[in-house]
Amino acid sequence: MKLHIIHGPNLNLLGTRETAVYGAETLKEIDGKCAALASELGVEIEISQSNSEGEIIDIIHAAKHNADGILINPGAYTHYSYAIRDALAAVKLPAVEVHLSNIQAREDFRHESVIAPVAAGQIAGFGANSYLLGLRALAELVRNG
Amino acid sequence: MKLHIIHGPNLNLLGTRETAVYGAETLKEIDGKCAALASELGVEIEISQSNSEGEIIDIIHAAKHNADGILINPGAYTHYSYAIRDALAAVKLPAVEVHLSNIQAREDFRHESVIAPVAAGQIAGFGANSYLLGLRALAELVRNG
Amino acid sequence: MKLHIIHGPNLNLLGTRETAVYGAETLKEIDGKCAALASELGVEIEISQSNSEGEIIDIIHAAKHNADGILINPGAYTHYSYAIRDALAAVKLPAVEVHLSNIQAREDFRHESVIAPVAAGQIAGFGANSYLLGLRALAELVRNG
Amino acid sequence: MKLHIIHGPNLNLLGTRETAVYGAETLKEIDGKCAALASELGVEIEISQSNSEGEIIDIIHAAKHNADGILINPGAYTHYSYAIRDALAAVKLPAVEVHLSNIQAREDFRHESVIAPVAAGQIAGFGANSYLLGLRALAELVRNG
Amino acid sequence: MKLHIIHGPNLNLLGTRETAVYGAETLKEIDGKCAALASELGVEIEISQSNSEGEIIDIIHAAKHNADGILINPGAYTHYSYAIRDALAAVKLPAVEVHLSNIQAREDFRHESVIAPVAAGQIAGFGANSYLLGLRALAELVRNG
Amino acid sequence: MKLHIIHGPNLNLLGTRETAVYGAETLKEIDGKCAALASELGVEIEISQSNSEGEIIDIIHAAKHNADGILINPGAYTHYSYAIRDALAAVKLPAVEVHLSNIQAREDFRHESVIAPVAAGQIAGFGANSYLLGLRALAELVRNG
Amino acid sequence: MKLHIIHGPNLNLLGTRETAVYGAETLKEIDGKCAALASELGVEIEISQSNSEGEIIDIIHAAKHNADGILINPGAYTHYSYAIRDALAAVKLPAVEVHLSNIQAREDFRHESVIAPVAAGQIAGFGANSYLLGLRALAELVRNG
Amino acid sequence: MKLHIIHGPNLNLLGTRETAVYGAETLKEIDGKCAALASELGVEIEISQSNSEGEIIDIIHAAKHNADGILINPGAYTHYSYAIRDALAAVKLPAVEVHLSNIQAREDFRHESVIAPVAAGQIAGFGANSYLLGLRALAELVRNG
Amino acid sequence: MKLHIIHGPNLNLLGTRETAVYGAETLKEIDGKCAALASELGVEIEISQSNSEGEIIDIIHAAKHNADGILINPGAYTHYSYAIRDALAAVKLPAVEVHLSNIQAREDFRHESVIAPVAAGQIAGFGANSYLLGLRALAELVRNG
Amino acid sequence: MKLHIIHGPNLNLLGTRETAVYGAETLKEIDGKCAALASELGVEIEISQSNSEGEIIDIIHAAKHNADGILINPGAYTHYSYAIRDALAAVKLPAVEVHLSNIQAREDFRHESVIAPVAAGQIAGFGANSYLLGLRALAELVRNG
Amino acid sequence: MKLHIIHGPNLNLLGTRETAVYGAETLKEIDGKCAALASELGVEIEISQSNSEGEIIDIIHAAKHNADGILINPGAYTHYSYAIRDALAAVKLPAVEVHLSNIQAREDFRHESVIAPVAAGQIAGFGANSYLLGLRALAELVRNG
Amino acid sequence: MKLHIIHGPNLNLLGTRETAVYGAETLKEIDGKCAALASELGVEIEISQSNSEGEIIDIIHAAKHNADGILINPGAYTHYSYAIRDALAAVKLPAVEVHLSNIQAREDFRHESVIAPVAAGQIAGFGANSYLLGLRALAELVRNG
Repeated sequence: MKLHIIHGPNLNLLGTRETAVYGAETLKEIDGKCAALASELGVEIEISQSNSEGEIIDIIHAAKHNADGILINPGAYTHYSYAIRDALAAVKLPAVEVHLSNIQAREDFRHESVIAPVAAGQIAGFGANSYLLGLRALAELVRNG
Repeated sequence: MKLHIIHGPNLNLLGTRETAVYGAETLKEIDGKCAALASELGVEIEISQSNSEGEIIDIIHAAKHNADGILINPGAYTHYSYAIRDALAAVKLPAVEVHLSNIQAREDFRHESVIAPVAAGQIAGFGANSYLLGLRALAELVRNG
Repeated sequence: MKLHIIHGPNLNLLGTRETAVYGAETLKEIDGKCAALASELGVEIEISQSNSEGEIIDIIHAAKHNADGILINPGAYTHYSYAIRDALAAVKLPAVEVHLSNIQAREDFRHESVIAPVAAGQIAGFGANSYLLGLRALAELVRNG
Repeated sequence: MKLHIIHGPNLNLLGTRETAVYGAETLKEIDGKCAALASELGVEIEISQSNSEGEIIDIIHAAKHNADGILINPGAYTHYSYAIRDALAAVKLPAVEVHLSNIQAREDFRHESVIAPVAAGQIAGFGANSYLLGLRALAELVRNG
Repeated sequence: MKLHIIHGPNLNLLGTRETAVYGAETLKEIDGKCAALASELGVEIEISQSNSEGEIIDIIHAAKHNADGILINPGAYTHYSYAIRDALAAVKLPAVEVHLSNIQAREDFRHESVIAPVAAGQIAGFGANSYLLGLRALAELVRNG
Repeated sequence: MKLHIIHGPNLNLLGTRETAVYGAETLKEIDGKCAALASELGVEIEISQSNSEGEIIDIIHAAKHNADGILINPGAYTHYSYAIRDALAAVKLPAVEVHLSNIQAREDFRHESVIAPVAAGQIAGFGANSYLLGLRALAELVRNG
Repeated sequence: MKLHIIHGPNLNLLGTRETAVYGAETLKEIDGKCAALASELGVEIEISQSNSEGEIIDIIHAAKHNADGILINPGAYTHYSYAIRDALAAVKLPAVEVHLSNIQAREDFRHESVIAPVAAGQIAGFGANSYLLGLRALAELVRNG
Repeated sequence: MKLHIIHGPNLNLLGTRETAVYGAETLKEIDGKCAALASELGVEIEISQSNSEGEIIDIIHAAKHNADGILINPGAYTHYSYAIRDALAAVKLPAVEVHLSNIQAREDFRHESVIAPVAAGQIAGFGANSYLLGLRALAELVRNG
Repeated sequence: MKLHIIHGPNLNLLGTRETAVYGAETLKEIDGKCAALASELGVEIEISQSNSEGEIIDIIHAAKHNADGILINPGAYTHYSYAIRDALAAVKLPAVEVHLSNIQAREDFRHESVIAPVAAGQIAGFGANSYLLGLRALAELVRNG
Repeated sequence: MKLHIIHGPNLNLLGTRETAVYGAETLKEIDGKCAALASELGVEIEISQSNSEGEIIDIIHAAKHNADGILINPGAYTHYSYAIRDALAAVKLPAVEVHLSNIQAREDFRHESVIAPVAAGQIAGFGANSYLLGLRALAELVRNG
Repeated sequence: MKLHIIHGPNLNLLGTRETAVYGAETLKEIDGKCAALASELGVEIEISQSNSEGEIIDIIHAAKHNADGILINPGAYTHYSYAIRDALAAVKLPAVEVHLSNIQAREDFRHESVIAPVAAGQIAGFGANSYLLGLRALAELVRNG
Repeated sequence: MKLHIIHGPNLNLLGTRETAVYGAETLKEIDGKCAALASELGVEIEISQSNSEGEIIDIIHAAKHNADGILINPGAYTHYSYAIRDALAAVKLPAVEVHLSNIQAREDFRHESVIAPVAAGQIAGFGANSYLLGLRALAELVRNG
């Protein structure tokens, strides 16, 4: 089983950016934790990050051929990128949406996810742990396919 | 560490109710899985279910004195019970909100959680697994206090 | 055939409460008329009243095992109790929603019923007669299955 | 006592039109059932059908002089014909609004009735039986004046 | 100069209909007053009444060839008939919109006129006098072209 | 009979201000026409203009003691001055609201009048003639008391 | 194959009406072009025009028995006639909605079509050519059934 | 004169709960102050607290028979409990609504009170003193009948 | 301690204006009662009334230098005067907002107070008594600083 | 004459993606059909596809210098890309907007096109045929300049 | 060239009022800086401040005759004074709108400026410097006419 | 001090694009003016332009390491790019938002800036001069850090 982890816009700045909201871990540290858990769960992972909506769509399209599931943190695109939503709907892989912060507890515009209707589920608010929980959830979903 | 799991309205019917939406497991089976995971994580759990908003508030109040964290599936109260929200805010325990279904992928009225702003995070869409992921998340939160 | 009639909040005050809006008959008198009609229609009825959302949910759950259909006047809960709605959806019995007053002719907040999407039909505006018409409608529904 | 039954737009196609939503009975069959019940209730009925908003208004105006009550299924006009509403308000006859389907359980635009504020009550969701229940309700209303 | 007065839906019932809102004068009496004033102003008038949106459109189209201006009370169509609005825009005659009652002082749905953007002006709230004032206004408009 | 004409904000600039929208006549010319018509109608008039909401309220209060009716063009205050509305409601004199331009045909914010619910009627869109028509309407109202 | 072309309200004035918006061709010229293209495509056409909502519904009902598809320009009814929408849904013929102007580029109220959800597709903005493109589209749809 | 003081949900936690918002006094201390003032005012009081909407309704119903007025702090139910509103309307006792915090100065959802339309007045923002002011207001209301 | 009482627009007409809504006492009588209570409470008061938003702002500014707290009834300005709100925020004196009528029980536009977010609390619905209760509340606030 | 066809996001997956909604033809097949029709119409075409909003803007800018018209299917960007809208407005080429599915018949967010106000027209709902009809429409537009 | 600087409500308190939001400079200091810059730019300035909407309108009217441009900080009136907007539209002088704070970054009600549509441009968020930048902008505008 | 100027989408077409709205100067000319002013102010500048949201985010991230402030014209992204907003919030450099046109005076969708809440201030409506004023403002901000 291979799972593709996609980090959306601004996540490359993690650990240096508004640490009160997003935590002090860098993206590299999160990726390391994901790799460790993947190994424990016996799944293979691939990790991408992009600030570009178009590139994220390209990555999702590519996942169609080389992955069994998608773990995605769409960042701010969560709230308006119907194009990313359509990409996930198009490739039809099981997808789990994760967020570092608890988006429904922040500004109004972050309460609605346009991605959610095409994802299997959503995990939000646990910092780096959102990814680890999401990885577990996704592996389970793919297994029970 | 002791965690209180609160099942909201209609969850007592699980496994018999709209299985396409909520899955075929009964609440008892989910409780069993939670107990097993709690044991694995080395935490104590207590489990309550109620269909009554007032009783859920009472349970939350009681948790203030006998638990270190709350895992709550507020069911339909998620979308309008400002009283349960105030109860969680009042007791100030770390709280994780879980849902069997992916609420943002269902009817419009299920997109907004009035509970979210007073919870640490939200996990939705993974059936019984939402509880297990939530338990892990909550144990981690309480540990890192 | 057994039908369960559920009176929601404040209906216990009928006949003493805003008679211009709700009519001068007491709940006991309405129950008597329902019993007479039930007898005429050859159906058995059970009648409950509660001011508590949680109890109404419990009553609906219980009906799952001891009734063939539900006649419910959810009172003010009509307009916000997604929990009662979920309870009716969960038990999957034919349900008829009745109202003494014509709710769409009153304050704006009474125009929308969150219960309606899980009921077979709605009868509103005929005072005590709403119950009798609802009983006829429900008996017919259950008969035609 | 004479009651005027008015069928609104597209009801002439009943039985051939979306039978899953509106039932398989033709308008003629419904009219027959209404006639039978009217006879049982000892009331006279007259029946009209029109697809035209203007004609429906004309029919309502005419009823002012030759009927004691109006049973109306305004079809889609229910949701926007303030002109039909004004006509009913103008003639001041007791009026009962009926619908074959449970309008509050369908598309959003069907949730609001602009007719309701000038009708005595509303019955929706029971197919042909909505008319029969409505006829009983109307006869009762006229009797109790 | 010839002016066409168009009475919209339900105005044929004037004098018999909700006299508290619309006044006790019949349409015939209003027409008589209009004729008298027309004569005083030295203008010719033609008067039509229809309950049908389509017929009102036909009348407006006809006015294009036989009138210099239109005085219209669109009744309830005021609030939703974009088709009548388009008809008035199409014929490009000076048009004055009148209402017996002060529509902005009544129910919310009567506050907006979809006709207003294609009329020269609006007069509302003066009962029969709204027509007389409108006739003066229209004659003036046509005169000053 | 004495009628008080109140010109609201910016009307002092008439004739020099956006003549395409408001016409080329100056306020003085309009006042002259009003005086002439008043004389013809056999009524006395007093005329005030103010750009200040507070002063307009003071003028309305004063009218309570020295006038039988109010003709008011509230200018932009039409759309938000609940204080002027309350002043008119408080003095209980018959009031007619006039506008030079057809407010419902302009920007969205000009479609709603918060003054209308306390006025007898509204006349809009006829330039200076709106005042003359309004004067006729008001005189009639006061006469028929 | 027989296709029914239905022209909605005010289209009879084409060529004389707001030519900047709707073009200078008359309805007769458009009908001529449609006939020529129909002949080229080997399909039979019938053409109706009506300003009345009720008549348009009647025409749609009639098409059920004598046509294989409907090409409709509902004019202003596009934006509020749920009755025409229900008529199209009832007859279940393939339907193509056309507009001379690009409705989404005009006033807000013209952005939403209540007809669209029951049509196969929509073509807007190409003047008379909208009809010709629509005819091609409809013929193709009927052919591919 | 007997007045019934009803404390709504979560007020039992007062003094321990978000003291920055609600103050540091416990409910017991507030009740003591109310008792002292009642004695000073020469009125008898009864005090209830419940977290349950249904129980609060029951308490209100009971007050109908054993009290002359109601002082209620509906807590979060203020913003959505139409059932409590109906209960107050049903018993028709003079009612005063109090809040510890200034609800219109907090989150948007706390700006609207669905209880207010059936209460005589509202006092909010003075902590424990809101109750004392409310008691004075209610005693005065009952006295002046 | 010196408290400044500010009466907003139209309050000078009290006792003569809509007595069913605002009560029959004149402003002078209310001022007298306030003076009596002030004396009882051992506080000095100054009283102003103005119909002008600008003057009310000036009065608030002046209070900054000669008062310890402000009791304000902003009348209709309550609902839209962000300028008065800014004035109160600027002077930073404790402020209590009072209303004769229960504003949340009246027209929709009176439900929201733009003043509330900068006031300590709000008292509404008790007629002249609202001022007396407000005076007590304000004195208490200033005392407890 | 040279026309530029721009395929927006996710269209590269056509034929493999939700074929019930978008049809079974691949983008290559559609491009082939477009080429065939272009040849028949005697026009030259160039075809681009991109998932990136920025690249689509670049393509539109480039078209300014090497094309006479633009046929664009903006995919999900239709509903929020004001940047693509501005690009089309900037280059001022005739533009036709096409969609495979009937966007007004799908989810609410697909009902509004932010592109429409800068396009000549829109064609939606005919699958691959939408492109062919659009090509005809665009060629005609460019020809008639 | 003469420019008129208009300070709106509450700006007279600058330097003493919420310095975290508005800065610590007094209005006099800002006026001094403006004078210095005006001198540097070779323009004459006049400065007014008023808390009254009506007076601000009067000042704008006066500017029509004695100034070539207006620099205005409308304070809270920015968000609702359609009367000030109409005054600026009436005098047709180039106008620049300035704000000390970044209004779109504050409360929702401060996001919309009803003044903006009649101003040439807006500068917000730079404290006293907003005035200096605005003065430069306005001088440039007047120069380039 | 080094400042980074970022031109958003479609600005590369300046001078050729809708000159009535955006002015006739090319981007190169604006850049020249900025350079001249920068030199006068003694600051170093770097200039970027991109049509891609993702690239703009990359540029902002890069600025974190090589600039002291950001001057950004986000073009149409102003109104929906929460991702650019998050990027600015993440790098925490002083940022000034500029617009050539007065966005609050144009279409509704241009009235709200999602960027504003993370910028220090906004300058809009002065064409090329918006950049020069913004540069002055930004230099001042950085200096006063």
